[in-house]
Amino acid sequence: MKEVKVGIIGFGTVGAGVAANILGNSDVIAKRANVKLVLSRIADLDITTDRGVKIPEGVLTTDAAEAIREADIVVELVGGTTVAKKFILDAIQAGKPVVTANKALLALHGEEIFAAAEKAGVDVYYEASVAGGIPIIKALREGLVSNRISRIYGIMNGTCNYILTRMENEGADFTTVLADAQKLGYAEANPSLDIDGFDTAHKTAILAALAYGRWFGLEPVHVEGIRDLELADLRYADELGYRIKLLAIIKSADGKVQMRVHPTLIPKNVLLANISDVFNGVMVEGDMVGQTLFYGRGAGRNATASAVTADITDVAVNLAAGSVRRIPAFRPGEQFSEVLSMDEVSSRYYLRLQVKDCPGVIASITQILADKGISISSLIQHERREADGTVPLVILTHVATERDIRSALAELGVLAINQAPVKLMRIEDI
Amino acid sequence: MKEVKVGIIGFGTVGAGVAANILGNSDVIAKRANVKLVLSRIADLDITTDRGVKIPEGVLTTDAAEAIREADIVVELVGGTTVAKKFILDAIQAGKPVVTANKALLALHGEEIFAAAEKAGVDVYYEASVAGGIPIIKALREGLVSNRISRIYGIMNGTCNYILTRMENEGADFTTVLADAQKLGYAEANPSLDIDGFDTAHKTAILAALAYGRWFGLEPVHVEGIRDLELADLRYADELGYRIKLLAIIKSADGKVQMRVHPTLIPKNVLLANISDVFNGVMVEGDMVGQTLFYGRGAGRNATASAVTADITDVAVNLAAGSVRRIPAFRPGEQFSEVLSMDEVSSRYYLRLQVKDCPGVIASITQILADKGISISSLIQHERREADGTVPLVILTHVATERDIRSALAELGVLAINQAPVKLMRIEDI
Repeated sequence: MKEVKVGIIGFGTVGAGVAANILGNSDVIAKRANVKLVLSRIADLDITTDRGVKIPEGVLTTDAAEAIREADIVVELVGGTTVAKKFILDAIQAGKPVVTANKALLALHGEEIFAAAEKAGVDVYYEASVAGGIPIIKALREGLVSNRISRIYGIMNGTCNYILTRMENEGADFTTVLADAQKLGYAEANPSLDIDGFDTAHKTAILAALAYGRWFGLEPVHVEGIRDLELADLRYADELGYRIKLLAIIKSADGKVQMRVHPTLIPKNVLLANISDVFNGVMVEGDMVGQTLFYGRGAGRNATASAVTADITDVAVNLAAGSVRRIPAFRPGEQFSEVLSMDEVSSRYYLRLQVKDCPGVIASITQILADKGISISSLIQHERREADGTVPLVILTHVATERDIRSALAELGVLAINQAPVKLMRIEDI
Repeated sequence: MKEVKVGIIGFGTVGAGVAANILGNSDVIAKRANVKLVLSRIADLDITTDRGVKIPEGVLTTDAAEAIREADIVVELVGGTTVAKKFILDAIQAGKPVVTANKALLALHGEEIFAAAEKAGVDVYYEASVAGGIPIIKALREGLVSNRISRIYGIMNGTCNYILTRMENEGADFTTVLADAQKLGYAEANPSLDIDGFDTAHKTAILAALAYGRWFGLEPVHVEGIRDLELADLRYADELGYRIKLLAIIKSADGKVQMRVHPTLIPKNVLLANISDVFNGVMVEGDMVGQTLFYGRGAGRNATASAVTADITDVAVNLAAGSVRRIPAFRPGEQFSEVLSMDEVSSRYYLRLQVKDCPGVIASITQILADKGISISSLIQHERREADGTVPLVILTHVATERDIRSALAELGVLAINQAPVKLMRIEDI
């Protein structure tokens, strides 16, 4: 049986998980895959902090170059987009295959890294970069290879899903739940990457690239986070039969791809709406397979390690079988090469206005929508007059374009009867 | 780009789907996998019936041997366990890799087929044999390779799930819904393979083999179907917060594996309970990844074709990369080699008795359970006296062994106050 030396760079949470996985389960991996994974080196600047894994003598080092030199496979778990990139390119230049979980780096510099890997003739795998332990990249790249992909919906940020689940279940507001999530370690001290949607956008860019054969990068992904989400909107959504999720949406039609991340109303009875807490779920729709859904833990030491170690095993099997680059990290194919501009995107919409409670209000609002060709699917106005004499008015529309809804919003915003910024969210019926 | 000739044996529903998939999507497959799939031959005794796919001139043949001879990859879609086995072994002996969707054949003769494939040095892949379009075999074999698998739960028979969903939603009884399912083509004229649980048992045997490295075969799988399920039981389950699903259960502990298929109460709020209609779902729990779930269409022309064509592509990539048997069809590893006998299985139980409405009834029943060490978690007796003076009594127990519950059931069965056979079902809290 071939022995394969694994060098890990970055001994943080995930690094410790991968070390534990290799140390604890290399026997079962060997039985299944006929390769023996050996932990050769773990490099980190800090090799004294106890990470809860007993690492064999002589494995820890502060010298990343040494870890690269001695390894058959280099595992980058440093994170970030600077030094991590250097380690990966160094490994590739040394002819070593690379496994990484670094979504931000791939979303920003994927093309450069994959080009270097192609030139050097080595594998670069990155299953753990999207949806943690869920083998969604393998599913898209191999399991669903025979499908033209029409839609992908992803709940891919555990922090946001945890916050939304608690807001919904407990009626607690965003700030309170965020503070609690930070205390519990589910949210970072600086939570922006998660709650402003950027982490989900990184993953969206990676999935879209795999589905459509072009490395789009981050720029064309429209991103809105959950920071401004009000409890009132979760309650109206609930009343109307919807839940609100931070959803990654990738769709293709007529040779154009759209990519967006924003809070989205989805019907309560679909499976995706029932993915709660820190869990992730990705729905992939193909022309042959129909709708599929992949669910599991999107983060955390062990779940992420499961994906990283699966990649390591895949690369090790390639080394053993002499089939390096059997399936390259990314194969450009340009199944769809154009990106749909956000203006052209069509959606159903949720609008919440805070209006003066006086005659003619609904008439003037619905007239503005009608003038833009936007038709209303439902409307709620409750008898809930605020101290300032205003009432909330919630409208769900049929499908309209972003351009038209934005244009309507501009007019609604300056209406004298409108007493607050209009809240807008998008609806996906899935 | 390597061209790979695909020969299909069996031009039924799935055969037509695979042909359509290759003809329609070989361009996108080529872009992703760098292999060009070419439909070389389709063999069937009936090559005149219109299958809804336009097959190029000269591809259809009645000669299976010819299809095997001319192909680089042989796809067996005949079904059954006799002639299908011969075709597969013929192909293997001719040195041709094989893709099949034949769960019954693999569950019964997997070892023989895989031994032949090993001897001949060819690949045999079978993704479509379990849960249709869901890439669950690839997930177990590759995506979750680094996990010790503790539990697998599967809803893997679309016919049963469709029947149970309709019984639950409409309050219709089993016989009525089955007749309707047969009319709609969701159930066979002879529905036994589906509704008596055997189809699910075949799939259970395959998943257990992959998870635990031993080809157990069908014999150790305990099987009960849904034929005797009464509407009353679905209603009580609902009242108690459960749904009833025909569930495949694979668990391992202390070096022993248990495999069973039976109607099972699962809590309504878990994702698996929300898999409805003809859809399938498989939950896999590993020591690293935690709980994952894979969802999609478990049957049907296109979904099954998606899995078959993914396998064809995988084999084609092996041929192109010179990495035949990179990952064998099945690698014996004996992670768990003993099978837990059904007597030793522990579960929570649902019991429904039809008892005389007289003093001391509950006391005498609960005493029998107490004598066996079986403790009660809930009990319902409604004021619903039947014409014959009996009332239904529903008991949920805490965990007990099959041996103890069977022994209690024998005593309950002969109680004078008990007026009908005791209904027993198992509960999984997932």
